[in-house]
Amino acid sequence: MKYSQFFIPTLREAPGDAVAASHRLMLRSGMIRRLANGLFAYLPLGLRSLRKLERIIREEMDSLGALEVKPTVIVPGELWKESGRWDTMGDALLRVKNRLDGDFVVSPTAEEAVTALVRDDLSSYRQLPLNLYQINTKYRDEVRPRYGVMRGREFIMKDAYSFHADDASLDETYEKMGRAYRRIFRRAGLSVIAVRADSGAMGGSGSEEFMVESEIGDNTLILCKGCRYAANVEKAACKPDFATLSTAAAKEAAAALPPVSRIDTPDVKSIADLCAFLKTDAKAFIKTLVYRVSNIEAGGPLDGCKKTGGFVAALIRGDLEVNEAKLAALLRASEVSLAEDADVERLTGAPVGFAGPIGLEGLTVVADETVSAMVGAVTGALAKDVHYRDVAFGRDFEPDIIADIRIVTAGDRCPLCGGELYEKKGNELGHIFKLGYKYTKAMKVSFLDVDGKARTPLQGCYGIGLDRTLAAAIEEHHDEAGIIWPMSLAPFEALIMPVKYEGAVKQAADSLYAALTTLGVDTLLDDRAERVGVKFNDGDLTGIPFRVVVGDKNLAAQPPLVEIKRRGGGEARLVGLDRAAAVITEEIRAELDALNLE
Amino acid sequence: MKYSQFFIPTLREAPGDAVAASHRLMLRSGMIRRLANGLFAYLPLGLRSLRKLERIIREEMDSLGALEVKPTVIVPGELWKESGRWDTMGDALLRVKNRLDGDFVVSPTAEEAVTALVRDDLSSYRQLPLNLYQINTKYRDEVRPRYGVMRGREFIMKDAYSFHADDASLDETYEKMGRAYRRIFRRAGLSVIAVRADSGAMGGSGSEEFMVESEIGDNTLILCKGCRYAANVEKAACKPDFATLSTAAAKEAAAALPPVSRIDTPDVKSIADLCAFLKTDAKAFIKTLVYRVSNIEAGGPLDGCKKTGGFVAALIRGDLEVNEAKLAALLRASEVSLAEDADVERLTGAPVGFAGPIGLEGLTVVADETVSAMVGAVTGALAKDVHYRDVAFGRDFEPDIIADIRIVTAGDRCPLCGGELYEKKGNELGHIFKLGYKYTKAMKVSFLDVDGKARTPLQGCYGIGLDRTLAAAIEEHHDEAGIIWPMSLAPFEALIMPVKYEGAVKQAADSLYAALTTLGVDTLLDDRAERVGVKFNDGDLTGIPFRVVVGDKNLAAQPPLVEIKRRGGGEARLVGLDRAAAVITEEIRAELDALNLE
Repeated sequence: MKYSQFFIPTLREAPGDAVAASHRLMLRSGMIRRLANGLFAYLPLGLRSLRKLERIIREEMDSLGALEVKPTVIVPGELWKESGRWDTMGDALLRVKNRLDGDFVVSPTAEEAVTALVRDDLSSYRQLPLNLYQINTKYRDEVRPRYGVMRGREFIMKDAYSFHADDASLDETYEKMGRAYRRIFRRAGLSVIAVRADSGAMGGSGSEEFMVESEIGDNTLILCKGCRYAANVEKAACKPDFATLSTAAAKEAAAALPPVSRIDTPDVKSIADLCAFLKTDAKAFIKTLVYRVSNIEAGGPLDGCKKTGGFVAALIRGDLEVNEAKLAALLRASEVSLAEDADVERLTGAPVGFAGPIGLEGLTVVADETVSAMVGAVTGALAKDVHYRDVAFGRDFEPDIIADIRIVTAGDRCPLCGGELYEKKGNELGHIFKLGYKYTKAMKVSFLDVDGKARTPLQGCYGIGLDRTLAAAIEEHHDEAGIIWPMSLAPFEALIMPVKYEGAVKQAADSLYAALTTLGVDTLLDDRAERVGVKFNDGDLTGIPFRVVVGDKNLAAQPPLVEIKRRGGGEARLVGLDRAAAVITEEIRAELDALNLE
Repeated sequence: MKYSQFFIPTLREAPGDAVAASHRLMLRSGMIRRLANGLFAYLPLGLRSLRKLERIIREEMDSLGALEVKPTVIVPGELWKESGRWDTMGDALLRVKNRLDGDFVVSPTAEEAVTALVRDDLSSYRQLPLNLYQINTKYRDEVRPRYGVMRGREFIMKDAYSFHADDASLDETYEKMGRAYRRIFRRAGLSVIAVRADSGAMGGSGSEEFMVESEIGDNTLILCKGCRYAANVEKAACKPDFATLSTAAAKEAAAALPPVSRIDTPDVKSIADLCAFLKTDAKAFIKTLVYRVSNIEAGGPLDGCKKTGGFVAALIRGDLEVNEAKLAALLRASEVSLAEDADVERLTGAPVGFAGPIGLEGLTVVADETVSAMVGAVTGALAKDVHYRDVAFGRDFEPDIIADIRIVTAGDRCPLCGGELYEKKGNELGHIFKLGYKYTKAMKVSFLDVDGKARTPLQGCYGIGLDRTLAAAIEEHHDEAGIIWPMSLAPFEALIMPVKYEGAVKQAADSLYAALTTLGVDTLLDDRAERVGVKFNDGDLTGIPFRVVVGDKNLAAQPPLVEIKRRGGGEARLVGLDRAAAVITEEIRAELDALNLE
């Protein structure tokens, strides 16, 4: 491609709101343009990179036997009502009424559409497993889209959905997809952190997120200094920092303790006040928090619970915080949030700050595991300005549920190796997930098994955000001057830069261009009548891996030479004009092969 | 690809509402499935053909220097308000409110989005011409979607938009695009009729539609038996079937005529009644019709007209009909429709049926060209039960505008060669169009010309509907048993059909599959344990060009043979197993080359 026949409107400055490096560089290099908040158009240069990423993903999907389909972008609302997500999805789901008053959805994801397609045509176990994918436009109505295409409203996602007769088959496809995802990110030059959902056991996981470390990440990752443990803070666990007691030992300890006694705690409002007042440590307190629980799914631990609907009390050791994501997941709720003061007073009979488990009637009580080791604790006494002391778990109260609901933070210990944990911000690029029967049951999909019985298939789903993967590659590979493309995603692999596009220089540049193009190298020839400084700056900005400067002086050598420089690495070197195309081609192939390695 | 690892859910019957052959066959062969009325998902087989068409179009666009971009599918309503189409587009434009109450559009076409992109980055004449295209999802909220993907709500369109410094440059790109469109359709195996908008002159046209003849077409084409004249009935012209008079001759004829006289015509309601009453021919009457005119654009003949706004009177010879599309185009209106009776009475002072041009005040009068030759005509007299006779054009009335506004029908004469015209139904697959300054002016696009002056660029636009092109290929190439794919669009080029997939037959089928795949042939191996009749039926239905039957008997020959049959043509023939891959590959290449020929 000749520069003069292409369209690369580079910018000296990015708009002030572009704070992320990838956002700034994609705008400045003429890859994308903003059409509205969260809506970006790809210009020709950006689209070339996007298509290369698309090709990598398609190759990996095809090679493991996934089949490409194309559902619509606008999907009937009926399907979302069948799955139940029409109601639970919230405002990020863009709903549309058509002219005949029908309900539609601009797809944010396609579980419903693909499950409906499979439902229509699945009859026999012989058709399973079936793994269908698309690479298509999606839309999520973000309130605050940010960081360019990293968190846009419209985006392109590769989403795959697999269907299986049994767990072993789901496991097999899930593992294959996990390996394919690792290959995709490696080929894209990305260092991803694979985060398993069950945050501990390294096998049998039901979900895995592929994260990149990023200052602008919207996830917090908990990582271990000693081993490869990695978890999303929403699910991270840690090694217990308390002595777990056997039932007998717990009973013995409780027996040795004086009975619970009331203490007056006037004007004591916070845990810190209480510590000062009782001259003890926060670890001695049991915090009791009342949560409102929204949209509880069937099949969870609150099923059939006769206690006050919509609220639970959560107990945790006084120095820790409750992880609302863990609590919500435990209760199979879409969300939990701290109850309003009025609700707390109504449900506990006391002002906020004096809740406690002893005598707490009518509320389901969820205790963090830390609480199960507490003997001789302090708790609220369900009355203003009163606490209990000498409280023993098991003797004085029994929670309904004991589970890990703490927030793990930097400094906690790794659940695998005991090493020190630390925190990083991360961005999710991909996610693979065993859905089980969630959609296939709700949408009544069935097949005839080998014994002729109707059964519901298991399902997996697997997503990658293409735009943010591209942006993440730029976040990881850039410098002050611009992008430094991994070879696999570079819009062009080689940039020929004649110092002045005329005479012998033009002739040499043209012949090199012809040679590289013939060898299958994506080559851009900067044939513009611009100052060489402008050309160099644009070349650095757009990040094309190989820059070949063709100038009078080097051409005059015997044999004629050109200058080759690898963007972002190594010194410029002189190579014979007649050998340059072969040298560059070989190095490009070697780099692509290296990215391709297992 | 092995059949057992693919997903081709064929159907014995198509749903009853699938009346078009392409709709039926795409459903039955497992190419597509319906998600809702007008919303179709492509299954793996259908997507393979769609992608091949996409590739053909992309190759042709790239080879003429168009650059691919990707605007969003969801586009800010602001841009549509700037162009004015937010108001004029009607209900087919799917409008969406997002959660922040912003107005958005699900793109039916992208003049606005692409013009906005170019506006941001166009500065100099040196960037022109610029030709940007996308192949992307579009949506049109059809009231009655029909015929499967032929007239669906969501569809894929290739739309290109070119920008130019001058007319010569626009003409050049427009002609190149026209040639590329002809190549695209030829490569897709389609016989298209190119219909020029100005329906006469073969150069300098401002628009060209690419139609296929089709029983289910929603356009009427006027074609000539004698030459290649082709026009959409909305714009078709014909050779005058009346003597055109010189001004002098017209004056002479009028002078020879008695003055206008009133005749009482009690109970005469229609032209037929009048013919019977006056014992004359419909050709002697001037019909006067009052039209309501909607959304008149600036720059048309009604500009600055002081007569009654929103209505015109149209005059035409009594045996002819007014072409409302021509009239609307003439007046630069979005639509014209016959006025309500009450409006006619108010504007003409007489009941419906007695309008006429003499004494008609306050209404703009548009006369069809036929009327300009009428001397001694009968017209309404603007009073109940009264007509005028001996009316002469020019002597007794003068219209404001004279133009061709007649409907041309079968039997009229070709404007080019005088041959007989006939009618066909057609479907539009593509359309190229010189937009001129319509969007670039409305959206304030400018560039600095060579002399440093700011100027507005000219624009062209060029669309092809991919889904309907694919469906049209099936409409043109099928038989009772199924699809007969043109080689270029076939989802697979060769189908290997082992009579029974085991033993020596399996071995031969596998080796042939390996050989064909190595040679780059898209091959499907039917490895199912189905009866051979089922396999044959599915093979005919899916329309894969080459079928190779591998069976015991032929394999036992010396040398071993397989049976090759071209779907839809020729007899089955026996070819040596060892030569089969080479023979098929060569024939496939020859067919593709033939489609590729200029």
